[in-house]
Formats: sequence, structure tokens, C-alpha cells
Amino acid sequence: MIRASVQSLAPYVPGEQPKLKRLVKLNANENAYPPSPKVAEALRAFDADALRRYPDSESSKLRHHLARRYGCKAENVFVGNGSDEALRLAVHAFVRNAAHVGVFKPTYSLYKVLADIREAPMDEFPLPDGDAALSRFRLPDPAPDLFCLVNPNAPTGTVFGIDAVRAFARAIAPTVLLIDETYALFAGRDCLALALEEPNVVVSRSFSKAWSLAGLRVGVLVGSAENVGAIFKIKDSYNVDALAQELALAALSDPEWMQANVRKILATRDRFAGELRKRGWFVQESATNFLWTLPGPPHAALEVLGRLRARGILVRHFAEPGLDKFLRITVGTDEQMDEILALLGR
Amino acid sequence: MIRASVQSLAPYVPGEQPKLKRLVKLNANENAYPPSPKVAEALRAFDADALRRYPDSESSKLRHHLARRYGCKAENVFVGNGSDEALRLAVHAFVRNAAHVGVFKPTYSLYKVLADIREAPMDEFPLPDGDAALSRFRLPDPAPDLFCLVNPNAPTGTVFGIDAVRAFARAIAPTVLLIDETYALFAGRDCLALALEEPNVVVSRSFSKAWSLAGLRVGVLVGSAENVGAIFKIKDSYNVDALAQELALAALSDPEWMQANVRKILATRDRFAGELRKRGWFVQESATNFLWTLPGPPHAALEVLGRLRARGILVRHFAEPGLDKFLRITVGTDEQMDEILALLGR
Repeated sequence: MIRASVQSLAPYVPGEQPKLKRLVKLNANENAYPPSPKVAEALRAFDADALRRYPDSESSKLRHHLARRYGCKAENVFVGNGSDEALRLAVHAFVRNAAHVGVFKPTYSLYKVLADIREAPMDEFPLPDGDAALSRFRLPDPAPDLFCLVNPNAPTGTVFGIDAVRAFARAIAPTVLLIDETYALFAGRDCLALALEEPNVVVSRSFSKAWSLAGLRVGVLVGSAENVGAIFKIKDSYNVDALAQELALAALSDPEWMQANVRKILATRDRFAGELRKRGWFVQESATNFLWTLPGPPHAALEVLGRLRARGILVRHFAEPGLDKFLRITVGTDEQMDEILALLGR
Repeated sequence: MIRASVQSLAPYVPGEQPKLKRLVKLNANENAYPPSPKVAEALRAFDADALRRYPDSESSKLRHHLARRYGCKAENVFVGNGSDEALRLAVHAFVRNAAHVGVFKPTYSLYKVLADIREAPMDEFPLPDGDAALSRFRLPDPAPDLFCLVNPNAPTGTVFGIDAVRAFARAIAPTVLLIDETYALFAGRDCLALALEEPNVVVSRSFSKAWSLAGLRVGVLVGSAENVGAIFKIKDSYNVDALAQELALAALSDPEWMQANVRKILATRDRFAGELRKRGWFVQESATNFLWTLPGPPHAALEVLGRLRARGILVRHFAEPGLDKFLRITVGTDEQMDEILALLGR
């Protein structure tokens, strides 16, 4: 018999992936550029015969490499089957039965799904307007066991500075603060240090965005040895496959490639944002590879969505009240953004 | 704060993977032979640039292929990040809070870990001695919500026939029966039909053993659309990476390769089992790619384990009372098994 709580779940809805002939996919915040050529090299060099063996169940080589990059120990680093796995395990490890999960709204819609799966009520608070407001924020009593802060945030693209996040983390302790840094490499600043300094902070990272490896499913959680150790206890035995471990290492061997792509995307983003603003759109300042936009008159979100879609250009729309007038547009190549601008007209 | 129930968990312990110079790994039931050359071809043909995109979140192509193979619909097939994921999700979906999980003993040690993570007590029953005993088996009241039957069983290698399993499934309904068929392709018979016939049966399959793809993490769960639909609701958004989906399809395009490897392994197994018996060992009849053995005098399990290990040959020993006199030996190549026989002497 299926548990009632599972039967009533509304699962996470990924950005749609329709089978159109010509498709410009700007709806899932994927990278506009491919991963480093080192990844293709590693793929071709990989001995397929070795796949008969189980992978390293602890992703040791990858974790050691990341630990050097982050200036910590391998025991501070968990590698998961995408950061999705890390986020799910954090919700399991840090939320007691019947305890709550806290988030700011709007945020990444997966957290509601993860809380539902854990049967944990969600406490939603309005997203503080800037660093000072975050520093002053206090949780009501009883506090949630876990607070998930997406920083930079999705879908707004806004980012809090480390001092404000530190003050927030300390103010809400012992509530665990999960800082989801999926987009941090686009922001050029991050809160990774807090995962190593503050006992109630863990930070997640992803290879899906800046590293152009969404197809590979590699995510990271950084925190104290105690917090990371708890995550290890509840992961699937062999959670990251042998190819994913190897290709993530190949990408890491070429950080310049990733950084060059990030620079190109930021330049395209800023130019595109300026063009939209010239056309009367409200465009939120972004620290990410996407823009949170409110079409200006005579355009409305659904109308623009439909017009782009008719040309095979997908952007993301959220039907939820309060969000439904906005469009979240992933920054693609210059050519792709110019095509959108041409469609919108002057 | 880490939940007390997580802190006290004893995680699953995989077969050890020490870094010895020369290693004959017969401790994790991996395939003695590599995957089909079609897998290497697909690996080389894979466009690494495509990794910047998320994979198909529902593994649709792979599920459709498997559905044709199994004679069912894609809606009856879940593909997971290894069968580990499928088993974990089944425990989550089918076990209500505070309900129990049932298993026969001895069985695959992962189930105890999964029940612990779910905070579900485990009801352990002695493994019935043959089909007639399984058909007669009745669960005590209150019955567990989920019963996990590994068939063929690990570590014993024994197998029940479909008629006995059907009778068992009907007798324990509405308890969900999860039939873990990780080793079914070695047995030459299976209970897959029950997953489509009986509303309380789901069957798991793996690409790690007969298909020689342990490094890739691809597992399958088959069942009614309702049961499989529940599993889909609680999976990670993008649970199977793009390469794993593609390479599993490549392996499936060459079933003859898999079957030829299975035949070689069974021939080696039967010859090796005969040689052990000649030396006075008890060797359980096996329907799998491993043997459950009790060394005959003057040998004892720990002594043989140490002697093989000193030569870089790893076999599996379970310290648990009742199992600790046995060794579970994966069937390798003829050369590998001959080396063991030579070490044991006449």
C-alpha cells in the first residue's frame, strides 16, 4: 500500500523539455557553453571495461581535489548525485520528525517538495530586502530545524553578502542553515567559509551551472566533519558513478575554461538586461546566469512566453500568484539574446 | 543539529576496496567480464558538449526500451541511480511511519540500513527451506508494511520458483512484496511477471551484475503504474545522468554479449564448486555469480580469508554470528578460480 503522504505529494516540476525541431532552451539555467575540452578528453580516455567494477563509494579522489580547492579537509566535503541528493539528505539529517523547514519566498521550488517528502511543514518568510534586513532577521519561536537559503537566490538572482549571512546564521543557531550556492560562481563571491567556521552552517555547490555539467549529476555539500559525516551515513551506497567522478575531476582541472564562460555569460547578461530596461522592462539586478524580469507595457509575461515559445524559445514562467507576472530568462549566447530582443521589437 | 536517529545509524558497509598492487576482487559480486563493446562505442560517440544540458528526468528512452523487453508499459518501469535508489524509495513509499519491514535471514545487509534510515523496525524470519516452505509461510500480526525478498538470495545464492513466490505474495497481501532480482539473469528464471500481475508486488533489477555496469549506477523497479508512479513522486529530480542512460541502452542493444558472459560464469562456477566439494567444503547450490561456502577441515573461514588476502585475493566474510563460518566467493575467471584452488591445495 502506498503511504497517503506519498500519494498526495506534488513532485518537483523541472523546466519543460519539449521535442521541438529547433529549441532555444533558456528555461533551466543551463550553461550557454559546453564543458571544458578536458571533459571530452577524459570521456574518450575512459576505459569502458572498468565499468564492471563499482565506483569509489566515497568519491575520494574528487573530494580530496575539492578540499584543496576549498581550503578544507576531505572529511568536510560530501559529493552527491547532483546537489539534489545533498539537499534531500540535509533535509533528512537535520530535520527532526514533525519539525519545520524554513525558507524565504520566493525561492527554489524544490525545497517545498523536499519538505513534503520529509512530511515537514514549511515556514515561509518574505525575502529580506538587502543585507541589513537579513542581519536583523529573527526566527519566530518555535524555530524550524533547518533553514534553506538560496544565495544567490533563484528565481530572483539577488545575493546577500557574507557578513549579513554570518549574522543571520548566528542569530538563528542552533537551527541549521543550508546555504544553496548553486549560482555562487557567477556571483564572484560566496559564503563557503561559513561552512567551515560556523557549526550550524552547511553549503551546497553544483557542477550543473558554471561547470556546464548538468547532464552528469555532481553536487557538493561542505560543512563540519560532524555534519558531513551525518550526510554520509544516509547516502546510497554507491551514489556517484565512476564516469561522473572522473569527468568532474577533468572539469576541475581546467578552471580557466569555466571562468571564461562565466565572464562571457555575465557580459551577455548585462548587455541584455540593459536592452530590456531600455524597453521599459523591470529587470532585477542579477548575480547569476539568469534574469528575473517583469515585461514592460505593452508586453505581459504570458504573452511574451507564448510569443517566444512559438519560435522555439523556452523561458521559465511560474504560475504562482506574485510570481506569475515575471519571466525568468536564462542567459544564453549573444545570438540567442539578440533573437529575443528582435522579437520584442523596439 | 543532527537528528539522534541519524547519529546512531550504522551505514551500509560495501565490500572493501583496498589499494593493493595486485588485486583479485571476488568480494562484491562484480562481473568477471567487461560490458559489451557497444558500451565503449557509445562512450566514444557521446557528445561531451551535451553534458551542459540536464538529462531526461524520466529516463524515457531507457524505460521504453526496458518496457519492450519486459512486455509492459513504460509507466510500469522506474529507472534509478542504481537499484539502491529504487530500494530506498520503495522503503519510503510503502512503509508508513512506525510500521515494520520484513526480511528473511540471511539476506542482503542493505535492507537493515534502509529500514534504520526510515526508522522502521525490522522483522526477521528464518529463510524458508525451499519452495514448499515459502508457499506455507505466513506473516504474524501485525504484519510489516513491506517485505523484501532477495531472489536469488544473497549471500546464500538460493532461489525460489515463481509459483512459490506468487503464493507467498498473495498470502502476505496487502503487505507489499519487493522482490530484489539483482541476480535473476544468472538464475535463468525470474518473477518479473508477478510485478505486473499482483498489485502488491514490485520487482527490482540491476545493471551492476549480469550487464557488467556496476560503475554506472543503473537500476530498475517494475510494478503497477500506481506503485511505480509513487516511486517517481519521491525520486530526485534528475536521478539518472545522461551518460548512464545512454550507456545502459548500448548494453541492452547487445544482450547476446551479456548472455555469453553469464554462460561462461556459470560454467566456471559449477566447475569451481565441484572442486571445492571434492576438498570437503560445503558449497550451497547457487543460482547466481557467487558461491556461499563453508570451508572443510582443516580450513576455517578466517584462515582461508587471510591466506587469500595475503595473495591479493579478496572474498567476502560476514562477522555476524551464524554467517561467520562461511565465505561468499564471487565467481571470477577460470584463471582466478584456479589460483584459489592451487592455494587451497589438494
